[in-house]
Order: sequence, then C-alpha cells, then structure tokens
Amino acid sequence: MRPGILFVLSGASGVGKGTIRSRLREQVPDVYHSVSVTSRAPRPGEREGADYFFRSREQVEAMARAGELIEWVEYVGNYYGIPRRPVDEKLARGRDVILEPETRGAKAVARLYPQAVLIFVIPPSLEALEKRLRTRRTETEETIRARLARAREEMQELHLYQYCILNDDAQRAAQDLVAIVRAERCQMSRVGPEMKRRILGE
Amino acid sequence: MRPGILFVLSGASGVGKGTIRSRLREQVPDVYHSVSVTSRAPRPGEREGADYFFRSREQVEAMARAGELIEWVEYVGNYYGIPRRPVDEKLARGRDVILEPETRGAKAVARLYPQAVLIFVIPPSLEALEKRLRTRRTETEETIRARLARAREEMQELHLYQYCILNDDAQRAAQDLVAIVRAERCQMSRVGPEMKRRILGE
Repeated sequence: MRPGILFVLSGASGVGKGTIRSRLREQVPDVYHSVSVTSRAPRPGEREGADYFFRSREQVEAMARAGELIEWVEYVGNYYGIPRRPVDEKLARGRDVILEPETRGAKAVARLYPQAVLIFVIPPSLEALEKRLRTRRTETEETIRARLARAREEMQELHLYQYCILNDDAQRAAQDLVAIVRAERCQMSRVGPEMKRRILGE
Repeated sequence: MRPGILFVLSGASGVGKGTIRSRLREQVPDVYHSVSVTSRAPRPGEREGADYFFRSREQVEAMARAGELIEWVEYVGNYYGIPRRPVDEKLARGRDVILEPETRGAKAVARLYPQAVLIFVIPPSLEALEKRLRTRRTETEETIRARLARAREEMQELHLYQYCILNDDAQRAAQDLVAIVRAERCQMSRVGPEMKRRILGE
C-alpha cells in the first residue's frame, strides 16, 4: 500500500478555494477533507465534526501547545486550526487528504509535511478578487484593502507551490484540481513499486 | 507564452496505448498527435499525413541519416520513425505534443528532450497482455513470447518514467492520461511566470 498523498489547497481569501474543493468532494469522494477546529460558536445548521470541531478558546490553545494542530490562526477574535491526528491517521492508512489553509498556513504545512502537494488558486485578476470580496458583504473596507495587499504579496511566493489553478471559471478550476489529484496518484514514485510487484509478483 | 509540453506515452506492445491516446484526442483536441513516417505500403483507408507519412525505405534512411527522425525502428521489414521537425515546430509555438514510441524509442526521446513527460502504460497482468496479443491474431508464437519477455524486462525500467497508467479499464486509463495532461498544464514551473505577469502586470 502506498502512503496517502497530502494535498494543500491555498490562495488568497475570496479566491474560491471552498467551491473548488467541494466539487472535488463530489467527483473524488475518497479524498479525506480535513475538518478544522474553531473557537467560534456554531452557526445555524453547522454540525460538530462535519463543518468544524467546536472547542473553547482554552481547548484550542491547549491543542496548539500540545502540538496537536498542524497550523492555527486567530481571525476576528476566533481561533481556527487544523488538527494533526486525523490527517496523520488517514495518510498512514493510505488515504489521500486535502487541507485548505490560508497561505501562511500552507507554508507551515509544507514544513511539517515536505511531501505535501501544494496547489495555489489564483484569481483571474486583483479586480475580480476585490469584486468577490465586496460581494461577500462581510468584510470591512479596511479588511478588503488588507486582503488585496496580501494577495499581491502572495504572488511573490508562487514558487513555493507545485501547481497553479487559475479560477476564472469554477467548473474548469475544479476539473483542474480533480486532474491534479488523479495525476498525482499516477506518479511513478508513488505507484511504481506496487506495479512492479503486481506484474512480476516480486 | 509557455513552451509546449512533450508527452511520451509508452509501454509494452499490445498494452492499449493507441486506444488511450485516441480518447485523449477526443477530450483534449489541442494536443498535437505526432504522425510517424513508415516505409510500409498504405493499408486500405490509411491516409498520407493522417495515419502515416508514407515514404520509401531509402527516404526513411536518408531522414535518419540527416537527423530528421527523433527515433526510428525496423519492424517486420519496415521502418517506422518519428519526424522531428513537426514536433519541434509545435513545441516552439506553445502547442503540447504527444508521441507514442515503443519503450526503446521512449528512451531515445528522453535523451533528446529531457523536459519530456514520460508516461508508462502497464497491463493488469502479463497474462492479460498475452491474451491481448493473441487476440490480435497478427503475431506468431515466437513474437508473442518475445514480446512477453520484453514486457518483463521493461518493468525493470519503470523508474525512467514519471507517470504510470494501469490499463485495467481503457476508459479509466484514458481519464488518467487526460488528467496527467491537464495537471502538467497546471505545473507552477510552467505557468508561474505567466500568472505573475497576469496578476501583477509586471
């Protein structure tokens, strides 16, 4: 059995990572989508363990101190973190995993998991990204400006990523992600030994 | 504009490369499928420039001497070769190209084009491969035995290839090839500079 592949989908806030990832879930259902832990209260309809693991601030801090989080951030007064154990367990069992951290988090993941496949989602333009952020209507003017400045900075770090998906069309971008997952599963370095055994019975 | 990507699809004779490649043609029509030159006579329905370039033995030999063939082999008394110029022209214009050489030819291609993406198609088993070769009814017992021995040897050279497609189902295998083409087109090393220009206008 080959080890699971860790896919890391990142990119600017508002670029549409979530939509792309949810289409991957439909088409390649055997990829495990990591569930984050958060200290914010559940919104109506959100379920424990499906949308998030809901924990107190103190619990999240304790997890971070104990090294149980792959990465974590504080955002608008709440913690968001990626629990390490479920990811490691799935990978060890040969199951592929996808995470969706913001870009600083992606770097943290790459340090912990050097074999991770890093994928950057890019907006068609900064103007398009700004429009998407404004459409959300949850962001202040200041936050929008900060996010756009950050998006420009992130473009200087593209080389950290192995793949780039241009999200000018969500359907097409999702197909790119599906293709990347599928192609990575065909990498000789991953499947070669198994194939050799299969054919030669060695 | 990024340079075109050269895909090289190889594997044992009878493993089903042609079928897989023809499905790629339907789904990703902008990949240029190299047309080989041959010294054998056209079969009914075969068209010059579409199925093969039909040339005399002397013409093929002259092309080989002049370095106009990426690789060539003699098979059952006829020459088969891959003309170099159309491939180089497409690649220079940013068009992706796929070749389908046998495994010795794949190595020759890799020497000439170190950036080529090498893909190996693997049969579900040697028994399945034998069955396919026998179904063809064009091979002598001796040829079949030689091909099977060769298929075993080729398994020792899997590491030369970047990807491995298991052809236990032609439809699935074709989807793997489509995914590999699509994922390679998302490689940051290929598209990063263009994306950066696009977003930052640099």
